[in-house]
Amino acid sequence: MATIEKDFLELLKEMDSYREVIALAHWDMRTKIPKNGVEQRSEVVGFLAHKLHKLETSEEMKNYIDQLKGKTTNSIIQKSVEECEETYNKSSKIPSDEFKEYVMLQSKSEAIWQEAREKADFALFQPYLEQLVEYNKKFANYWGYEDNIYDALLHNFEPGVTTKMLDEVFSKLRVSLTSLVEKVNQSKSKPDPTILKGHFAKEKQEAFSVEVLKQIGYDFNSGRLDDTIHPFEITLNGNDVRITTRYDEEDFRMAIFGIIHEGGHALYEQNISIELARTPLATGTSMGIHESQSLFWENLISRSRPFWEHYYDLFKSYAPETFQHVALDDFYRSINEVKPSFIRIEADELTYALHIMIRYELEKGLINGDIAVKDLPDLWNKLMVEYLGIEPPTDREGVLQDIHWSGGDFGYFPSYALGYMYAAQIHHTLAAEMNVEQLVASGNFAPILEWLTKNIHQYGKMKKPLEIIEDVTKEPLNPDYLVNYLTKKYTAIYQ
Amino acid sequence: MATIEKDFLELLKEMDSYREVIALAHWDMRTKIPKNGVEQRSEVVGFLAHKLHKLETSEEMKNYIDQLKGKTTNSIIQKSVEECEETYNKSSKIPSDEFKEYVMLQSKSEAIWQEAREKADFALFQPYLEQLVEYNKKFANYWGYEDNIYDALLHNFEPGVTTKMLDEVFSKLRVSLTSLVEKVNQSKSKPDPTILKGHFAKEKQEAFSVEVLKQIGYDFNSGRLDDTIHPFEITLNGNDVRITTRYDEEDFRMAIFGIIHEGGHALYEQNISIELARTPLATGTSMGIHESQSLFWENLISRSRPFWEHYYDLFKSYAPETFQHVALDDFYRSINEVKPSFIRIEADELTYALHIMIRYELEKGLINGDIAVKDLPDLWNKLMVEYLGIEPPTDREGVLQDIHWSGGDFGYFPSYALGYMYAAQIHHTLAAEMNVEQLVASGNFAPILEWLTKNIHQYGKMKKPLEIIEDVTKEPLNPDYLVNYLTKKYTAIYQ
Repeated sequence: MATIEKDFLELLKEMDSYREVIALAHWDMRTKIPKNGVEQRSEVVGFLAHKLHKLETSEEMKNYIDQLKGKTTNSIIQKSVEECEETYNKSSKIPSDEFKEYVMLQSKSEAIWQEAREKADFALFQPYLEQLVEYNKKFANYWGYEDNIYDALLHNFEPGVTTKMLDEVFSKLRVSLTSLVEKVNQSKSKPDPTILKGHFAKEKQEAFSVEVLKQIGYDFNSGRLDDTIHPFEITLNGNDVRITTRYDEEDFRMAIFGIIHEGGHALYEQNISIELARTPLATGTSMGIHESQSLFWENLISRSRPFWEHYYDLFKSYAPETFQHVALDDFYRSINEVKPSFIRIEADELTYALHIMIRYELEKGLINGDIAVKDLPDLWNKLMVEYLGIEPPTDREGVLQDIHWSGGDFGYFPSYALGYMYAAQIHHTLAAEMNVEQLVASGNFAPILEWLTKNIHQYGKMKKPLEIIEDVTKEPLNPDYLVNYLTKKYTAIYQ
Repeated sequence: MATIEKDFLELLKEMDSYREVIALAHWDMRTKIPKNGVEQRSEVVGFLAHKLHKLETSEEMKNYIDQLKGKTTNSIIQKSVEECEETYNKSSKIPSDEFKEYVMLQSKSEAIWQEAREKADFALFQPYLEQLVEYNKKFANYWGYEDNIYDALLHNFEPGVTTKMLDEVFSKLRVSLTSLVEKVNQSKSKPDPTILKGHFAKEKQEAFSVEVLKQIGYDFNSGRLDDTIHPFEITLNGNDVRITTRYDEEDFRMAIFGIIHEGGHALYEQNISIELARTPLATGTSMGIHESQSLFWENLISRSRPFWEHYYDLFKSYAPETFQHVALDDFYRSINEVKPSFIRIEADELTYALHIMIRYELEKGLINGDIAVKDLPDLWNKLMVEYLGIEPPTDREGVLQDIHWSGGDFGYFPSYALGYMYAAQIHHTLAAEMNVEQLVASGNFAPILEWLTKNIHQYGKMKKPLEIIEDVTKEPLNPDYLVNYLTKKYTAIYQ
């Protein structure tokens, strides 16, 4: 290997070292840190993030990009250079004064948003959101785009996905989902979610979840499970992929499905090829593909009937008093209850994507200049009625519910819905190759994880999200698979 | 404040940021990390330690030292400059080639020592130890000394303490301790340690210890307690001071006295003045003073009779089956059993310092050239018989038991014995100012902690160890206080 390639890999290692300790510091701050330690720790993390940012945007980095891009025969180095170039350009195209102002605006806006949400007072947040939108429009122009300015923002979270594509798939999806939701609403045979409530000791929930995690293939020698307030998966390195959860002793759903969801993210990160270690390629390729893995395990596996055919007896043994008289079929229907609701993060599998489409339409309009910030609350409520048939009582349960915009994250939301579509499309291909239902019903998850590893996980960022989808499923993104999956599942549940 | 002082404080903050994340990484590696995560993490820690080392020995640092030392009117900056100069000199006086060779020798030696200890084969370790001694003699000459070459090494752990001082205090101490040990050995009224054995559930041991920790003043909003294999205290920042322990469900002594010991270290670190935060002064001033604080709480407080007068009922309530028929007096005598033993870290309060003196005589001889490495095993065993009246069956229980020398740490051991003497001397002064026994017997620890904070803790590294002792006790180090304390205590226990 040429000296310059070795030196470049050394620089990547330095950057990766900063990344790992920043990740460790974040994990610690969200799981273990004593209250009073936070203040200084925040300064420390700020310092380390700054050091990393300086390396990412250094002259040295620029030189490596210029000298290696398209000139190396090593594909890992080539892809790493491309990743580094993305990061370099993203920062270097924004004048540094503007970037500083923007960082200050972000942190102020987040605080104001929190206050506005508490008070359900959109007017408080409005001037900040207006500025955030303006900055993002400017940045999008710096970064460039071919067709729609919003594409430049989408690119940060789901490279390759365009506004045009989303308009197309979302409009199809919306028609199908709203009609399905309507059918469900009109059904006379509704599951009873109250049968799921009842005492389930935290330790027992954890023990059951750990059992499941091990069986689906999560390696506790390369990870751990801790308590937190807002659950997450975090990768310290490929052999240290941690997940967290929160327990409600009166409703097991939060922890158990949450753990399987984070476990799905973790399986992705644990199974990336070791060859990519210590490069920027050693992580999931996009927000959407990541979400497809968590949703695959959470929804398509652990909310499926075969899964509970296998696990229901074990599950009941951990909380016999609460579930001994609940029949498997009632249990299965109840964990899949559909009910239009105001809050995205509480939404069920069927309505979730509709929540996303509302945000997509609005942020696309904001960035394109078709929508004014001041009109957001009314438009939000209008779309809620149109898509979900319900109207939020206040902006707290409406336009103010999500943190994303207050941090300037425009273009992020679509990834969630893409995750649903990717997951269903991937599952369809998998099911053509093996009898997934039978494997799940017998608790034999290894062939499934092997297939996901071979087709998706191992590549890390070596392949772009749409490349993964096309290589695996032999066709472009197609929302029909999600619609077919949901139609079949929910038609059966709501007969 | 002058610009240069501000810039210097900024550099100190950068160094402190590296220190904090390195500490976090170590804590995590010793408490939480999954097995497979260790390999990459070790590389990451190495990288960060290297970054810190580069700052400590940079030209920039040299310039600050030259420009600020003796010229600033800010005492925190002045003391910080002095600390930085110590570190700078320690590194920069060693030719970098030699330092590199030495670092490699250290890590090889530690591995060899482990093997040698397992096999009880000193000959394996001997050539490495010979090289380590030679390097340390060379380094001591680079660093310089006034009287005895060994002083240069002592300085790294206990600045201000000299070979001359140690010869004097240790010779006094040895006579008194060996005679006390002899009396104890001849006593007909020996405590029965078997009454302390018996089941004590881990959770109950932890609950009791947490209760005690809170009452002696450990702030759980600025710290936490975790499990580990080799217990330690670690400071992430002044508001995040963590302790760890190990539990034996058949012998509570390891965890409960261990937690109070580490808690004593933590109280020191939690109560350093906030003004020193983010400078190199925000930690205990020396190994010995640190140990004085842990031993103060472990031995002088939690192995005292008043302590158990207060806590014994509570203690019994956590393990009633095991302790309901054990009388307080028998309990108190048993937790203070004296018994000469081979292993330092298992030694009791009375014999511990004798173990240290053996190591002191030997390493002093090695560094001064009076002792050859090959003669160590025989000399060790001879001193064991002379000081403790027992002879180790193999070198595993003798000269090979400690890790220190294999890492090149010569001059470290005396600090442990100094900690005992400091603790007793400090306790004597405290007891002249307040009724310590009465306070402890009533569980009122606040006046004691306040006094320690006012006189010791708050200063961090603003005062040197002997300066602390003289300022607090109004006299130099005096081993009589330890002798008096031990004589009174053990004469009563062994009547």
